[in-house]
Amino acid sequence: HSGEDAISAYFQSTDARPFLQNLTDAQKADLQNFEGNAAGFRILTHTYPAQCDQAGGLRLTYTTLATFTKYPKEVLPVKKGTPHTSEKKYGFFQSEKERYQTIAQELGLMKKGNAAEVFYHRHPLAFLVEAADDICYRIVDFEDGCKLGLIPFKEAEKLLKAILNDAPDRKSNITFFDWREQIGYLRARIIGKLIQETAELFIQKEPEMLAGTYDKPLISEVSCKAELDEIKTLSVEYIYKNRPVLEIESAGYEVLGGLLDVFLNAVFAPQTNRHRKLIDLIPTQYLGPQRQVPATDYEKIMNVTDFIAGMTDQMAISLYRKIKGISLPQGY
Amino acid sequence: HSGEDAISAYFQSTDARPFLQNLTDAQKADLQNFEGNAAGFRILTHTYPAQCDQAGGLRLTYTTLATFTKYPKEVLPVKKGTPHTSEKKYGFFQSEKERYQTIAQELGLMKKGNAAEVFYHRHPLAFLVEAADDICYRIVDFEDGCKLGLIPFKEAEKLLKAILNDAPDRKSNITFFDWREQIGYLRARIIGKLIQETAELFIQKEPEMLAGTYDKPLISEVSCKAELDEIKTLSVEYIYKNRPVLEIESAGYEVLGGLLDVFLNAVFAPQTNRHRKLIDLIPTQYLGPQRQVPATDYEKIMNVTDFIAGMTDQMAISLYRKIKGISLPQGY
Amino acid sequence: HSGEDAISAYFQSTDARPFLQNLTDAQKADLQNFEGNAAGFRILTHTYPAQCDQAGGLRLTYTTLATFTKYPKEVLPVKKGTPHTSEKKYGFFQSEKERYQTIAQELGLMKKGNAAEVFYHRHPLAFLVEAADDICYRIVDFEDGCKLGLIPFKEAEKLLKAILNDAPDRKSNITFFDWREQIGYLRARIIGKLIQETAELFIQKEPEMLAGTYDKPLISEVSCKAELDEIKTLSVEYIYKNRPVLEIESAGYEVLGGLLDVFLNAVFAPQTNRHRKLIDLIPTQYLGPQRQVPATDYEKIMNVTDFIAGMTDQMAISLYRKIKGISLPQGY
Amino acid sequence: HSGEDAISAYFQSTDARPFLQNLTDAQKADLQNFEGNAAGFRILTHTYPAQCDQAGGLRLTYTTLATFTKYPKEVLPVKKGTPHTSEKKYGFFQSEKERYQTIAQELGLMKKGNAAEVFYHRHPLAFLVEAADDICYRIVDFEDGCKLGLIPFKEAEKLLKAILNDAPDRKSNITFFDWREQIGYLRARIIGKLIQETAELFIQKEPEMLAGTYDKPLISEVSCKAELDEIKTLSVEYIYKNRPVLEIESAGYEVLGGLLDVFLNAVFAPQTNRHRKLIDLIPTQYLGPQRQVPATDYEKIMNVTDFIAGMTDQMAISLYRKIKGISLPQGY
Amino acid sequence: HSGEDAISAYFQSTDARPFLQNLTDAQKADLQNFEGNAAGFRILTHTYPAQCDQAGGLRLTYTTLATFTKYPKEVLPVKKGTPHTSEKKYGFFQSEKERYQTIAQELGLMKKGNAAEVFYHRHPLAFLVEAADDICYRIVDFEDGCKLGLIPFKEAEKLLKAILNDAPDRKSNITFFDWREQIGYLRARIIGKLIQETAELFIQKEPEMLAGTYDKPLISEVSCKAELDEIKTLSVEYIYKNRPVLEIESAGYEVLGGLLDVFLNAVFAPQTNRHRKLIDLIPTQYLGPQRQVPATDYEKIMNVTDFIAGMTDQMAISLYRKIKGISLPQGY
Amino acid sequence: HSGEDAISAYFQSTDARPFLQNLTDAQKADLQNFEGNAAGFRILTHTYPAQCDQAGGLRLTYTTLATFTKYPKEVLPVKKGTPHTSEKKYGFFQSEKERYQTIAQELGLMKKGNAAEVFYHRHPLAFLVEAADDICYRIVDFEDGCKLGLIPFKEAEKLLKAILNDAPDRKSNITFFDWREQIGYLRARIIGKLIQETAELFIQKEPEMLAGTYDKPLISEVSCKAELDEIKTLSVEYIYKNRPVLEIESAGYEVLGGLLDVFLNAVFAPQTNRHRKLIDLIPTQYLGPQRQVPATDYEKIMNVTDFIAGMTDQMAISLYRKIKGISLPQGY
Repeated sequence: HSGEDAISAYFQSTDARPFLQNLTDAQKADLQNFEGNAAGFRILTHTYPAQCDQAGGLRLTYTTLATFTKYPKEVLPVKKGTPHTSEKKYGFFQSEKERYQTIAQELGLMKKGNAAEVFYHRHPLAFLVEAADDICYRIVDFEDGCKLGLIPFKEAEKLLKAILNDAPDRKSNITFFDWREQIGYLRARIIGKLIQETAELFIQKEPEMLAGTYDKPLISEVSCKAELDEIKTLSVEYIYKNRPVLEIESAGYEVLGGLLDVFLNAVFAPQTNRHRKLIDLIPTQYLGPQRQVPATDYEKIMNVTDFIAGMTDQMAISLYRKIKGISLPQGY
Repeated sequence: HSGEDAISAYFQSTDARPFLQNLTDAQKADLQNFEGNAAGFRILTHTYPAQCDQAGGLRLTYTTLATFTKYPKEVLPVKKGTPHTSEKKYGFFQSEKERYQTIAQELGLMKKGNAAEVFYHRHPLAFLVEAADDICYRIVDFEDGCKLGLIPFKEAEKLLKAILNDAPDRKSNITFFDWREQIGYLRARIIGKLIQETAELFIQKEPEMLAGTYDKPLISEVSCKAELDEIKTLSVEYIYKNRPVLEIESAGYEVLGGLLDVFLNAVFAPQTNRHRKLIDLIPTQYLGPQRQVPATDYEKIMNVTDFIAGMTDQMAISLYRKIKGISLPQGY
Repeated sequence: HSGEDAISAYFQSTDARPFLQNLTDAQKADLQNFEGNAAGFRILTHTYPAQCDQAGGLRLTYTTLATFTKYPKEVLPVKKGTPHTSEKKYGFFQSEKERYQTIAQELGLMKKGNAAEVFYHRHPLAFLVEAADDICYRIVDFEDGCKLGLIPFKEAEKLLKAILNDAPDRKSNITFFDWREQIGYLRARIIGKLIQETAELFIQKEPEMLAGTYDKPLISEVSCKAELDEIKTLSVEYIYKNRPVLEIESAGYEVLGGLLDVFLNAVFAPQTNRHRKLIDLIPTQYLGPQRQVPATDYEKIMNVTDFIAGMTDQMAISLYRKIKGISLPQGY
Repeated sequence: HSGEDAISAYFQSTDARPFLQNLTDAQKADLQNFEGNAAGFRILTHTYPAQCDQAGGLRLTYTTLATFTKYPKEVLPVKKGTPHTSEKKYGFFQSEKERYQTIAQELGLMKKGNAAEVFYHRHPLAFLVEAADDICYRIVDFEDGCKLGLIPFKEAEKLLKAILNDAPDRKSNITFFDWREQIGYLRARIIGKLIQETAELFIQKEPEMLAGTYDKPLISEVSCKAELDEIKTLSVEYIYKNRPVLEIESAGYEVLGGLLDVFLNAVFAPQTNRHRKLIDLIPTQYLGPQRQVPATDYEKIMNVTDFIAGMTDQMAISLYRKIKGISLPQGY
Repeated sequence: HSGEDAISAYFQSTDARPFLQNLTDAQKADLQNFEGNAAGFRILTHTYPAQCDQAGGLRLTYTTLATFTKYPKEVLPVKKGTPHTSEKKYGFFQSEKERYQTIAQELGLMKKGNAAEVFYHRHPLAFLVEAADDICYRIVDFEDGCKLGLIPFKEAEKLLKAILNDAPDRKSNITFFDWREQIGYLRARIIGKLIQETAELFIQKEPEMLAGTYDKPLISEVSCKAELDEIKTLSVEYIYKNRPVLEIESAGYEVLGGLLDVFLNAVFAPQTNRHRKLIDLIPTQYLGPQRQVPATDYEKIMNVTDFIAGMTDQMAISLYRKIKGISLPQGY
Repeated sequence: HSGEDAISAYFQSTDARPFLQNLTDAQKADLQNFEGNAAGFRILTHTYPAQCDQAGGLRLTYTTLATFTKYPKEVLPVKKGTPHTSEKKYGFFQSEKERYQTIAQELGLMKKGNAAEVFYHRHPLAFLVEAADDICYRIVDFEDGCKLGLIPFKEAEKLLKAILNDAPDRKSNITFFDWREQIGYLRARIIGKLIQETAELFIQKEPEMLAGTYDKPLISEVSCKAELDEIKTLSVEYIYKNRPVLEIESAGYEVLGGLLDVFLNAVFAPQTNRHRKLIDLIPTQYLGPQRQVPATDYEKIMNVTDFIAGMTDQMAISLYRKIKGISLPQGY
């Protein structure tokens, strides 16, 4: 999440300007509003010409790919403040736009927006993916924050029990001696309950989904919505604003922005010795045939961005520190 | 694997002697031949009294647990050089012996060995688990070693193609430009082929398994056994004897042995201030009620071993370095 | 505090045994129950023969030294579970015993215990020193823990307000927008209140002190004793058992014990090249004339202990890491 | 000292230009000639609106504050090469100018300069503060440099004895065996002598001070002025130009300038995600109500500067390294 | 080699532009095509005015200096794609041009090019120096790469044996059990063989060299030229493109460019406190009399470049890290 | 030097006792008085059976080897306090004793001591090697210490000029502006002078050397012996007792002793997994055929000692830190 924003921030900065001048508005918008969902779609469906001569990425079924796509639209037009959950983000970059269109047409997804826009109604199963994400992130992050001591146990327990809404005379058949165990048990019961509720909601709302008249997260309609919102509020306050988290995220802008800048400069002017060495550090798949830099500006940028976005935090930090002279190579 | 050995080495050392004196021979043998399969069975089935009042661990079905258990015997008697794959290691510690017996009896697994020994024939599905492990570890480690540059690509390619045994006039429908992609593709095809072969073998050998007359790894009967053995040989030479691997494993003996020693000393003599602070560092679940040290020597040792064995490499190194004065706390 | 215990632990260990064999029981007891109050008295009053030819340490007045001495007794006999606050610890080592006796006699402090023991009633002003220590440590540690996020603000605020016992209709003339400011303000008001109360108590109890019939901490008689005890309980739970604190304290045993062992071995066998280099690392003042090792075992031990105990945490860790081959010297 | 200069250098740099454009000349001059004395006055007298609703800082008496203020003038006009010691620096920022005026008027300090300038004669006690500073910094730095081995003992001893100007037949009653002890003793005697002399000078010059006709440091009139100057010369050569000192100071410009730039950019454009995270790292007191950024450019700059200037070296380096991706967060 | 390029890259960058504006084209070309051979000639022949009053550097003989100079020309005109080995690089900076001219005239080296250019035929012995360099770098780097495991032993062995071209029935009188020993032995035999061949070639070609009609590397005419070229190709692929090598070289651009920029800024504007401290970090020899900055822009740049280029990798990285706030000074 | 002592200290410690029990007294004495000169002789003359089948080490001439051998005796009998310079240390281990005897007999070196001892008169050229060592170490260490700021320039200059003993009216033709240059120049002139004097001494004393009646260092008879002794005294005081030096040397005992212990334990009990991994870390040449551990205890010890003693400081520290769990492997 924070990585997406670091990449967007780089492409909004003046440093990135020279690289973007030959791109279309939509291509620029992709990079300046870098979206993990679209990046995921690209990983699943894109084959680099430098890899092999056969396209199609991981070769998943159309249904799987449509289910994966929670936001079946391209980046533009941006839908600020939309009440429609499927329009809040976008689901594929310009480079995969055609591929998604093929999928949508093949599966008969309903078109949305005007003719010029690539914009569809969700595949119904995408509502279940969204619900699964919402449940997991919200509950599990909260449990983690609690176990790490960031959220006081008593506050957490009160909230989790409210969600379960147990009858006052409910007799638990387990007695917990370790509060960590207890939190885990509550989490498991809540997830069970939410799966149950969202499954029922899905069945009930499926006709509307198919008719294109339902467009909100299933989780927004469960019985304990208020408590889930409270969990989110507490998570933001206690976990996401925790100093170490903020410090690492702030560093992420330096690291990801720094790496993008170094490698974009290299592929845009590959003649110098310095840049040649940097290009030698890029894996073959992100380069063109014979490890030449890709032909077009757009490919250069997309491939370098794939390279940087595809690293784990640890790899990115390690590479950044090495090529910036920050980390000491062994023996120095 | 290397962690198992580091724990065994500690319990064989003179440092551990005072802690073991009240243990039975089989309990000692468990610790001195520490076995990851038995540790896994314990994690799946054990509930600490300090967690809650209800036993049963993760509460999996008996069939799942029997399938998981590739070595359905207790530690003694050791079967050195046995030709029977199910006797090469052992599958549960003394602490879970009774639990396994219940499972075996419930599922009707055939008894082996003399009456005093807890020793069964495998559940047939355990042969599939073993095959899956064998295929994955052998092929995927080899692929990783190749991608890390430890194994020369040409040697790897030759061997992998030999396994696939393609007809000389086979036309691949994909052309690879990046050798990493190609290795990945060969790996995928080999895994597919091995799954196919072992599945067929399983069906063919199931009657023998049920009769208790089959006891070797399915993988030892596949068509490309010779090449798989060659892969193993190359992996040992190039990967497992790679200097950084050896250095980290050597450090592991210091780190795991050091942590076991520090925390066993603490729980065996919990009165001193030094030990009290160390005990305060042990998670509640590995202690007894009210965070007292467990009552018996055996529980003390098993729980501390669970605590140490349950850490990731990174956690273990970090804790070791902190309490040994090696790593500098922030601000020093 | 944790340093005292690390030093005691070393001298109780078998490693220290060879060095202690020529010491008296009381000298051994000093080291094995190493006491910061006695170490402080030594720093204030001791001059090393290697420094200059004139004794008397920092040359403070007898009254100051008696006021400083909260525990006017030597180490033996240990008074376990005594209700008398002045007997809970001891105030001077064997090396400074005579000096304290001179002070006590000069100031007319009342003798306690039997003739063989060096054991006095407190100078009345020592009760005020004790009260100051008690107030500061308890309130300020609590405030720090709160500001570091270890103690939830709401729990802290409730407790601190209870101490101040404000009338329900009390109108504060300051409105705080930053809870850190507010905690600081409550802390300041509480310290003011406690100074007031203990000052009054001191005046009231002085006759008893002079008569030798008063021997408890003034703080134990203030109006808010219950809340202060609750503060202590919370501080132990939230602050002193905080993982980083426990980890650093555990490392302290390794570091201080390690340094004592290295340097005691050196001064007890100064002939080898290795030990000569270590002795060259000891500051002149802790050695004898011409930087020879001190003549007696007792002086050797006391001086090395002064050297190690006199280091800041940072100095001790740094020296330990250097001479153990842990920290990398520049250029490696 | 070096921190003041690093802050000034930042505000003189082109990086700071966009932030300063709405400030008055005097406000800019404060920042571009950042002065520790004025910063100290601000800490003592300033309350942030985000703290509480009551102004007045630490609430010291007017006399204390006037005594503290060695340079009772605002930043402009700069008095280059002035012979008047009270005009060499300035004593308060524009933000505290009114407060100082109130103090000066209340205490009846004599006005200096033209009507438009805020410019007073010193409170006489400020001459004593200045003398104390001069004595301490000069003698104690020199002693430290000597004990650290930067200044050869023989040169130091000769100079210190020259200051004491002992009669040739003076018999010391102490013989020192450790030169570090001896240096300490000489330092103590010199400080005693200088206190004596400056006290006498103060009494003698007080009428002139009150008349506003005395304006030089008391230390410039003591008997051993020549030797004190020599001490200063040696300290500069041996201590302040010592490589590690220079290296740390050079790093200070990077670190403090870097932090100012990062956080000023954040508070001047608080909308982006990156900046929001950075603002979340600023303590409440340096922000406005509800942790909003302060309203005016001047407050934004002053508060961020207070935040950065108020960190210890260690805190500043640690924060800089974290948010720049230099230091590795635990677990990477 | 990579250092030369990092220095050139800095002087080609916009950062360096302000410093270069008063330089001649040839002076600029020196810096923007920084050449280690010319830097070596400068070290051997240059005395800094701040060192002593006598010029002449290390005071070697003219013959030694002419032998050292493989490229007896100044930087301009650049001879891109020349077939003449002596013109591929240049051998002295503008600052040492006159000195080389004196040497050339004194030794009677033949002039080349037009009258305005400083451009000579090689001293014949320079061909031997070139051959020695070529042999060593090519063979020894290859051996190192092999011993480090970067080049597979079997490929290396095949190639090295091809160079030796042993008769099929050759009986070695040594049997090797350790392949590292064997590689060393092959390397020694090859170097022996190449010395022999190039010595013979030298004798044969000397008349042409003296006549100025021979201008290619002796190594290009040996019997095993093809294998030597293959060795070079493998070395580039396996060694020079090894990731750690590329990472360190990439860091070198940051470090050397960063140091040049910091210190050039300092000597070009030496008035600020920040720059004064940096200048205090420059060794006396690279400054002018009384440690003032040198008088001319050219001297400022050449001396700072000498300072930076003269550091070992380790010194450069260490200084860069210190003054950039990257490395933590002791005690932080 | 300090490494020799660390190795000796280990073999004197109780840790080494079990490994030494099957060695002869002389073999033990070699290890417990580990001597760099003997280690050098071994490197020059020893071929490991695991390397190749041909003995003779680097295959130097007998004269070169005899010249190298300043101490032509075996370790026993130890000659404490001998006035004969050639007996102060020893020149070869038991493992190379026979080889030296062959050399001595072949060159006709005169036998010394009784028949049972291997003990010769020096080859005359060894006196020149000794003189070269003495001159270099003494003068160059002193110059380094001076340039590092450990020895005050004025003291150094006075002493160096005294050695040169210039006529009072000597006019130097060079004026130095940088004291570092001047120190270098004085060093160069002194070395020139000492070479001259010792060469003359050698010619004069050669008949005595050949007759076996001369046995002291040539340097002990030069005109400036007193100043050279003073240089040694100052070097010890200022350089060799410098804290960082002492700290690194102290660490050396931990590191070298630690590595010897780890690897000796491994080769003496090579069956365990832990030891097998450690043995895999030993280079082939120090093991026996097929990388088995060597056959005899003596070979095991000598080879492991060669392995450890042959590492640079940096390699030893790095290996020690890795296998002890001190240094963090990349990615932890």
